[in-house]
Amino acid sequence: MHQLIRHDPAILELRLDHPPVNALDSATLIWLTEQVRSAPEQGHRAIVLSGQPGMFTAGLDVPHLLQRDREGMRQFFFEFFGTLRALGESAIPVVAAITGHAPAGGTVLAALCDHRVMARGDFKMGFNEHRVGLPVPRPVYVAFENLCGPRLAAEYSMQARILDGGEALAIGLVDEVVEQDQVVAQALAWCRTILAFPSQSVVAETRRYVRARLHAAFREENTDAETFLNEWFSAETQGAMKALIAKLKAKR
Amino acid sequence: MHQLIRHDPAILELRLDHPPVNALDSATLIWLTEQVRSAPEQGHRAIVLSGQPGMFTAGLDVPHLLQRDREGMRQFFFEFFGTLRALGESAIPVVAAITGHAPAGGTVLAALCDHRVMARGDFKMGFNEHRVGLPVPRPVYVAFENLCGPRLAAEYSMQARILDGGEALAIGLVDEVVEQDQVVAQALAWCRTILAFPSQSVVAETRRYVRARLHAAFREENTDAETFLNEWFSAETQGAMKALIAKLKAKR
Amino acid sequence: MHQLIRHDPAILELRLDHPPVNALDSATLIWLTEQVRSAPEQGHRAIVLSGQPGMFTAGLDVPHLLQRDREGMRQFFFEFFGTLRALGESAIPVVAAITGHAPAGGTVLAALCDHRVMARGDFKMGFNEHRVGLPVPRPVYVAFENLCGPRLAAEYSMQARILDGGEALAIGLVDEVVEQDQVVAQALAWCRTILAFPSQSVVAETRRYVRARLHAAFREENTDAETFLNEWFSAETQGAMKALIAKLKAKR
Repeated sequence: MHQLIRHDPAILELRLDHPPVNALDSATLIWLTEQVRSAPEQGHRAIVLSGQPGMFTAGLDVPHLLQRDREGMRQFFFEFFGTLRALGESAIPVVAAITGHAPAGGTVLAALCDHRVMARGDFKMGFNEHRVGLPVPRPVYVAFENLCGPRLAAEYSMQARILDGGEALAIGLVDEVVEQDQVVAQALAWCRTILAFPSQSVVAETRRYVRARLHAAFREENTDAETFLNEWFSAETQGAMKALIAKLKAKR
Repeated sequence: MHQLIRHDPAILELRLDHPPVNALDSATLIWLTEQVRSAPEQGHRAIVLSGQPGMFTAGLDVPHLLQRDREGMRQFFFEFFGTLRALGESAIPVVAAITGHAPAGGTVLAALCDHRVMARGDFKMGFNEHRVGLPVPRPVYVAFENLCGPRLAAEYSMQARILDGGEALAIGLVDEVVEQDQVVAQALAWCRTILAFPSQSVVAETRRYVRARLHAAFREENTDAETFLNEWFSAETQGAMKALIAKLKAKR
Repeated sequence: MHQLIRHDPAILELRLDHPPVNALDSATLIWLTEQVRSAPEQGHRAIVLSGQPGMFTAGLDVPHLLQRDREGMRQFFFEFFGTLRALGESAIPVVAAITGHAPAGGTVLAALCDHRVMARGDFKMGFNEHRVGLPVPRPVYVAFENLCGPRLAAEYSMQARILDGGEALAIGLVDEVVEQDQVVAQALAWCRTILAFPSQSVVAETRRYVRARLHAAFREENTDAETFLNEWFSAETQGAMKALIAKLKAKR
């Protein structure tokens, strides 16, 4: 099960551990939301969100979700949006320690963090939602724009491009690429620099400017669950997801 | 005369063909506006806007326009803004296949599209309006900012810089540079990737986020024709345009 | 004392000359505000803000300011914000001729200008306010975002990074790096290009688009002096500033 690791000074590492691919199922999302939301009141001052060696998270647990009915999926989207909002609105900095693959939902979680450190190697990230007919919530798109600029956010999202760490670094989707065994250490180092500054209220003030556009997007969010539900249960998207599952099964 | 070419699957190519330089005269602008506006209802799902080998468009037909009176120019600006708005607000993606030179008005049309493929070679684009004393409509400036970021949009517009494909690619003014005979093919490939995604309503939803800033700029547009008319008929701008024409004539 | 130098055509150079480090004391700030505000009505059409060889400005005069009481500091922040606003809202272009070091307050002044030319060499700029527990006014943060994009503005501000000219050029914090004895000449050249365009009213119109985001930030500015005063007199920030002064003294 997922691990909580405490680092000095008051940094909480949330290490995803849900074999085989750290899929974002209900339990994981609920746990993440709760941990991120309660971290400040428990005295934590920064969060590192990490995964397993070679796998940050493969994103939504599509094979499982395909078995859910509309009510079940409504519940799921509620949980998923809750995690996105918890990360996007976190009162303390969150650093993504991208220890491996992070396509689709993995890229989404990372984009909502304050800083991203990725493992060197043949690991994939992606704006690949369009390939299976899934939309991107608007605040997530705003996060992509903040990181990559409007032109590249458009280009990569519209074309649903998948990219490796080198390309992710080149377009600003990640901030650093380091050896896999250094990813968490580097994420901690980023937090420690900030936590060592003399006035944490000044740091928090700057961070409000930094996150202003993202916070506004979460406040204005009008991507209601119905849109996602309609897309999810459309014949096209169901077909695309089933085809993907079949392809992944054939690969094994 | 301009050509309409239909490509699979449901992609409409609008190929400018108005020798010698594809100047944007009234007839061309009216044709472009009509084609872009009516394309979706005629079943087209994407548009490629192309030119002739070596010449996308040289922009406004200044020698002809210098003969128009204020009423004639008011009509012209109405037509020109209409084309800009048709491109900027197009319900389906438009890709600029920049087959050659695209200074001033050519750069403006390209910037309002969804994606830009430029021909390799010594072809010029430019933010050179200031050189002849002409303003840039605000939505076009917003498009420049989306592509290049605020700093470079400012720098290139204020200094009225002219640039070749390599520099255009470096600052994000174009997305790809390919061999001249591959420009249209590459523009079609971009459309085909998008049109092959399973859910076109999801693609349209993402595209609304992508184009949101540009759409807002067109809605807020308060650059009325009067400003443009006053500038056009100012002694300074008339002088600069006449000097340009004289220089171009002397070159031939 | 600071120098006023007139260059053709109607360019006013404001050369900071306040040994040893061009510290931004009250007299300097009041002089800068007054010169920038009155330049247009005195017939100047562009401003170059320069420093001494090797030193643009080291920023706020912290050793002196530490002796001020709350009322004295309130007065000082009023003067400092006045200069920022004068630069940010200047009716004519201002080019920063960064002739040497420009950390903290030096970076702030430069970021509010229209264009930045920096001297080649081992000169430092920085977003290093967090190191001494000082906040950045919101319009200044908006200027950083305009120059470097949201991701890098966040990264450099949050981590309070100090950088040299090469890195400043790479992230867009400066626009050009030239030999030290060419910095002012290059700043003048930038102004001359613009002033030579036929229609200065068109140039001013484009400049309104270019500066729109920054102007809006100054209008919305709700960073009142009280926030700055509270931070300034906090035990943490006072301690950090005193430690800095001690360290600088020990170095000499």
